Amino acid sequence: MPDLQPVFVLVRPQMGENIGAAARAMLNFALDRMRLVDPRDGWPNPRAVAMASGAAGRVLDHAGVFATLPEAVADCAYVFATTARGRELTKPVMTPERAMEHARALCEGGQKVAILFGPERAGLENEDVARANAIISVPVNPDFASLNLGQAVLLCAYEWMRQGSDRPPEVVEMGRTEFASRIEIDRLGDHFEERLDEAGFFFPATRAEGMKLNLRNLWSRMPLTRADVQTFHGMLRQILRKRDGG
Amino acid sequence: MPDLQPVFVLVRPQMGENIGAAARAMLNFALDRMRLVDPRDGWPNPRAVAMASGAAGRVLDHAGVFATLPEAVADCAYVFATTARGRELTKPVMTPERAMEHARALCEGGQKVAILFGPERAGLENEDVARANAIISVPVNPDFASLNLGQAVLLCAYEWMRQGSDRPPEVVEMGRTEFASRIEIDRLGDHFEERLDEAGFFFPATRAEGMKLNLRNLWSRMPLTRADVQTFHGMLRQILRKRDGG
Repeated sequence: MPDLQPVFVLVRPQMGENIGAAARAMLNFALDRMRLVDPRDGWPNPRAVAMASGAAGRVLDHAGVFATLPEAVADCAYVFATTARGRELTKPVMTPERAMEHARALCEGGQKVAILFGPERAGLENEDVARANAIISVPVNPDFASLNLGQAVLLCAYEWMRQGSDRPPEVVEMGRTEFASRIEIDRLGDHFEERLDEAGFFFPATRAEGMKLNLRNLWSRMPLTRADVQTFHGMLRQILRKRDGG
Repeated sequence: MPDLQPVFVLVRPQMGENIGAAARAMLNFALDRMRLVDPRDGWPNPRAVAMASGAAGRVLDHAGVFATLPEAVADCAYVFATTARGRELTKPVMTPERAMEHARALCEGGQKVAILFGPERAGLENEDVARANAIISVPVNPDFASLNLGQAVLLCAYEWMRQGSDRPPEVVEMGRTEFASRIEIDRLGDHFEERLDEAGFFFPATRAEGMKLNLRNLWSRMPLTRADVQTFHGMLRQILRKRDGG
């Protein structure tokens, strides 16, 4: 599926380092189609290459370079423009979330999608934005909006990935073990209850039942693995062994 | 609503510039609680201030500085650790999305939440992660994972904002009690570790450090309330009292 991803278009980027950083940010989320419009310091740019390194260097090797924005997006069916400020344009303004959801749908439908990022200092010109179908605006703190080029690229790439994973499951990493079964929890509870009973823990007698119930609740509430259960058995045994031995 | 936001804890950060950049990234999404653990170049750091500028400088002015991680999260009820690689730990591993959804719910419920970010080069140590309840891992391209400190901070801050935008957070029901703070968990861990050490539990000596780390992980993974912590202290004390008395 060669075209099932959007093209990230850096419009008149200034610093080579930022071009390299954008390539890295993209590749973190498996995006590798970059285009450049009239990069200030020409192309190729050694500073961009130095910043990209490794696999991200290949993103730069394959980057298309264009003299003008219209040429850069000529083959695209849908263009998003990232902007910080409102433009008073009659155009949909989307969060990155909504925009990448839409981009996914377009790409799935075989459409070529572009996302425009403006130059570091000033951002996209109104005439660049005029080429776009929709605007992407990150909802930032109105009292402190300071996203730079690399950050805007990162957030769009991240949202692209996020929209593509069917609600990434919360994986509970289990290492090499498993959660204990209820019977293992019960036996752990029995073990502690017996030894605590011998130690006079459930005192006074009128409160003993309630205390035991609380303790059962405590054990069953805990997300204990089999290894955890063995650890608790082992701790109790070792302390008792010490007691009985000396 | 003074505490309705998580604390971002930079653990042993190296470059002042990155501390300043983290403050900027946070403030974009209206987060301004930063803590620093043992910053390499001391504090205050002029490079951090130069990078932050303006309102983000105030985030740095109010940043708490701590000698150790346990001190930095002593008052926190729930701690997330950001890590790139799997740790083979039995701890929930969440996407930023899921983690910030959970963080929102905890904050809404009045709980103090911390998010740990490791040093630039190596990331968090295993013993840092052992203090955490859960892990945040950004699902990046397995063939190219290169998120840096500032990017990890940015993505978490962005997700915090995003989770807050629409959907009303699900509040974690707390009953009549509260989750234990990290310092209470630490003290519980200390108590068991000391008594188990005396009882010869950490044997053989070559495995003692690993066993202690596992035990710290066990305690920090459990959703212990203050009452639970008191119960565990009480159980251990009573068994020891019985042991030492007769």
